[in-house]
Amino acid sequence: IGWKGSPQFTQDDKAFKVKGRIQADASYVSAPGALQDRGLGFSSEMRRIRLGGEGSLGAGFGYKLELELSDNSVDLVDTFVTYRKGSWLVQLGNQNPAWSLDELTGDTSGSVMERAAFTDAFNFERRLGVQVQYAKGPIIVQGGVFTDSIGDLANSSDGVKGGDENNSYSFDGRLVYAPKWGNTQFHFGASAHWRRLGRLDESATQYRQRPYIHGSNTRLIGTAGLKVDTELNYGVEVAALSGPFWGVGEFHVMRPNRVTGPTLNFRGGYAEVGAFLTSGDTRGYKGGIFVNNAPAHPMGGGGMGSIQVALRYDYLDLDDRDIVGGKQNGYIAALVWSPIQYLRFNVNYALMSYDNAVALPSGKRSYDANVVGTRFELDF
Amino acid sequence: IGWKGSPQFTQDDKAFKVKGRIQADASYVSAPGALQDRGLGFSSEMRRIRLGGEGSLGAGFGYKLELELSDNSVDLVDTFVTYRKGSWLVQLGNQNPAWSLDELTGDTSGSVMERAAFTDAFNFERRLGVQVQYAKGPIIVQGGVFTDSIGDLANSSDGVKGGDENNSYSFDGRLVYAPKWGNTQFHFGASAHWRRLGRLDESATQYRQRPYIHGSNTRLIGTAGLKVDTELNYGVEVAALSGPFWGVGEFHVMRPNRVTGPTLNFRGGYAEVGAFLTSGDTRGYKGGIFVNNAPAHPMGGGGMGSIQVALRYDYLDLDDRDIVGGKQNGYIAALVWSPIQYLRFNVNYALMSYDNAVALPSGKRSYDANVVGTRFELDF
Amino acid sequence: IGWKGSPQFTQDDKAFKVKGRIQADASYVSAPGALQDRGLGFSSEMRRIRLGGEGSLGAGFGYKLELELSDNSVDLVDTFVTYRKGSWLVQLGNQNPAWSLDELTGDTSGSVMERAAFTDAFNFERRLGVQVQYAKGPIIVQGGVFTDSIGDLANSSDGVKGGDENNSYSFDGRLVYAPKWGNTQFHFGASAHWRRLGRLDESATQYRQRPYIHGSNTRLIGTAGLKVDTELNYGVEVAALSGPFWGVGEFHVMRPNRVTGPTLNFRGGYAEVGAFLTSGDTRGYKGGIFVNNAPAHPMGGGGMGSIQVALRYDYLDLDDRDIVGGKQNGYIAALVWSPIQYLRFNVNYALMSYDNAVALPSGKRSYDANVVGTRFELDF
Repeated sequence: IGWKGSPQFTQDDKAFKVKGRIQADASYVSAPGALQDRGLGFSSEMRRIRLGGEGSLGAGFGYKLELELSDNSVDLVDTFVTYRKGSWLVQLGNQNPAWSLDELTGDTSGSVMERAAFTDAFNFERRLGVQVQYAKGPIIVQGGVFTDSIGDLANSSDGVKGGDENNSYSFDGRLVYAPKWGNTQFHFGASAHWRRLGRLDESATQYRQRPYIHGSNTRLIGTAGLKVDTELNYGVEVAALSGPFWGVGEFHVMRPNRVTGPTLNFRGGYAEVGAFLTSGDTRGYKGGIFVNNAPAHPMGGGGMGSIQVALRYDYLDLDDRDIVGGKQNGYIAALVWSPIQYLRFNVNYALMSYDNAVALPSGKRSYDANVVGTRFELDF
Repeated sequence: IGWKGSPQFTQDDKAFKVKGRIQADASYVSAPGALQDRGLGFSSEMRRIRLGGEGSLGAGFGYKLELELSDNSVDLVDTFVTYRKGSWLVQLGNQNPAWSLDELTGDTSGSVMERAAFTDAFNFERRLGVQVQYAKGPIIVQGGVFTDSIGDLANSSDGVKGGDENNSYSFDGRLVYAPKWGNTQFHFGASAHWRRLGRLDESATQYRQRPYIHGSNTRLIGTAGLKVDTELNYGVEVAALSGPFWGVGEFHVMRPNRVTGPTLNFRGGYAEVGAFLTSGDTRGYKGGIFVNNAPAHPMGGGGMGSIQVALRYDYLDLDDRDIVGGKQNGYIAALVWSPIQYLRFNVNYALMSYDNAVALPSGKRSYDANVVGTRFELDF
Repeated sequence: IGWKGSPQFTQDDKAFKVKGRIQADASYVSAPGALQDRGLGFSSEMRRIRLGGEGSLGAGFGYKLELELSDNSVDLVDTFVTYRKGSWLVQLGNQNPAWSLDELTGDTSGSVMERAAFTDAFNFERRLGVQVQYAKGPIIVQGGVFTDSIGDLANSSDGVKGGDENNSYSFDGRLVYAPKWGNTQFHFGASAHWRRLGRLDESATQYRQRPYIHGSNTRLIGTAGLKVDTELNYGVEVAALSGPFWGVGEFHVMRPNRVTGPTLNFRGGYAEVGAFLTSGDTRGYKGGIFVNNAPAHPMGGGGMGSIQVALRYDYLDLDDRDIVGGKQNGYIAALVWSPIQYLRFNVNYALMSYDNAVALPSGKRSYDANVVGTRFELDF
């Protein structure tokens, strides 16, 4: 019996652990008052609640099973069976396709409260499918075939929306080269994704994003609903970690092919630098993503835990050809205090600078929003 | 590894336990036949189902995470992180504001099947917020700031109802003095609550109550939907426990301030006496609320478990000024058999005497309802 | 601490285990193209997800508490308290009435992916109630009283559909005689069920079935909604297991009594033979149902796990008197590979031969559908 926030039971090659997560936010969005949007201003919410378990069955087989409650409804998050043999790992079930570094990094391991704007805007999500990974030394190769998200596949109702007629599928692949040069861990990655929406081309696909925090339902930028039959998207990832410092950047392109009209080209990305202010603390990196390291001097162990700060520039451009979805330049400052492992407190400030956003009564479509976000998160 | 219905794992200052609860009811409401309300009569339902966990992370930090299913939808119940230092306790997350003694006492630790009528009628519920408690000797002081319930804050849809625009908040405080004089445990408490409903003043607030049991959706008394902008409510609590006997009473006032029209004044309360019939059994009291003690002579240990009986008078008055919500005088007799710890069977009889209730076809608004309720409950 | 996919904790006469289940399907239904039903063809879905726990409280008391997510909503599955004394077992809560052998056998212990067509067509489901079982030697007697399913009883809304006015109830009984003659385990069973639908006779009851796999919402056969006030149904069960071989068959009759019009008589049944291809493996049988035995030579233990094959003829006749619901003759070939205990992979092929099914544009109502189903399932 070990301990990772909850007991970790191990017996021969078998293991089991209960998993849980609580994230609650209180935030404020200050946008031009002329917008008169009541979804802005103060908001608070239970951002994520998860309960589940993970374990090993022996002989290389394992599983993870988590329920998530956000917005008062039940979601399935990681719910899959794994088989590991040597450098190979097969994952079968509901899981993240090999999206971008920022999407794959756990939401309680991030440096900022919400992921890069493009990850939501381009509709990254977990899907039902099978993924194969080969990892050896600094190399990780991931490739998978997926249908759609569990919710969209549920056949509780008829029609494309109900999942009954959903025949979409995608191929997703990612390559990571993560060498360690001296004391510096580098990360170079690239991923590509092609999806055929099938009958979903009859319903509308939207590319849009909230004003940084999740507590507001308002989207100041976003396209109208588009009839899309295939999507091609790809991106590159670069990161470096050295001692208490890290830097990371990504650039991602989404190319929706419309049923009628030319293919579109949307772009997103971010660049970030960060550092731990507390001595001995470092950001973790494992398996091609960022992870949390335990504080070097936690509370109860003579210290006050770890404190990290990060500055991120977040970019999203949903304007192309005849589509004017809007542009966003976000400047985010983030502070995370982790008094002990598995528990973190976040304070974020973001200046969101918009172009071609929802128009003010004056017709002006370029303006700024100031956002303050706070969060506590427990994850074990 | 200890055992509290499920294993309680402990390692240094860390701990973990899986929690579960099952409550199922079968009940009967006999009201004047002239009402022709088909929601009365026999009903059965799964009253509450909970699954979750609680634990300690060490260094004074702890957590509780429970999902509840009632009425086939998912609710979050206690879902918070705690920090304890000396006499101080901070709770952050979804939790009960420091309501009344009857509301704060667990639903599987009660003496009667359903809480005092005023607790539902005045819309006591768990909310997202932060609460600080100071407890030393016989004194407990609790104070907190809250927004709204997780469900009402979920931003799955727009508008005030969807949580997106909800900007309500409240301040809640409670004082308890619980001295032990001789062998008698006394409890004197008072709580006060002020809430600004914010944009919720555009939607209707109702004060109403079921005919004792939860299986019926009928409300024989209750106000129409009122536009309320602030609520002030406060109450006093008195209890005493001595050997197998206990007595407890509360009185609570709710003063809704309407957008237009004078402030209203609704009143509720109850008085109860009870006793254990089985030798050696007593009602538990801890941290300012009632708790369950293990049966002194459980089944499997040579005995038949514990049997407790209680008589409660339950009062609710929703008539004030221009509002005629109705009055209720309830007389409840309750029997609880707990064959072993964590498992209880309830049989309740209630005579509900109404004034200004839903009118019979004859126009008569004063009449009685006879209610029989049965429940089994498992809680660990 | 033992291990059954997750740790099994035992202390004196107390026990606890976390339970979980994942089932995901990918399937294909090929029906006459003239049907132009887009719910046919390829489908994938998360078939079942369960999370819960089971345990013993001591003194003969035990419990099981599971949440299920199918089709993106939460269901309660086995959620009950048990009391065992000698040969007697009482189960109180949400559970399967003593339906047929195929319905009572766990969905991860079946030989084919989906249960016999009549079990869905006749609306077998878990219900809230109390069941008593007497089991001694080869004899099992089960009898219970039930109201309705938890979902149908939830009083989240008014009316019969909302559970508020639901006053249905049923009596359900089953007899099993399971002698062992030589090395052969025999099973002879019979069950009978009578249900009064009460106010539910105002809403419509349908008897219908999917084209074998669950991923499609299409029903090629099925009655219109009927106003039914009572249902009587009964069936017989025969099975034999010997070494790697087994055979099993059932026949079940459903007699809905309509509010107006004569009583109907629908019929269903199946006959199956199966065998394990891997040496040393056998099908398990315990407590009157089939269960899974651990593979004799699992992966990681020098073997490749167990492989079983089965052939099933599945019959359903929903034609009677004035009702033309359709007839189905299904021919199912099934293969299950279980590399290690608690994990199984299924491949099924089914030829479904229909009469009086949904009409083709030509008016033809007799035709075939070819179905291929695949599933992985984890259950601990």
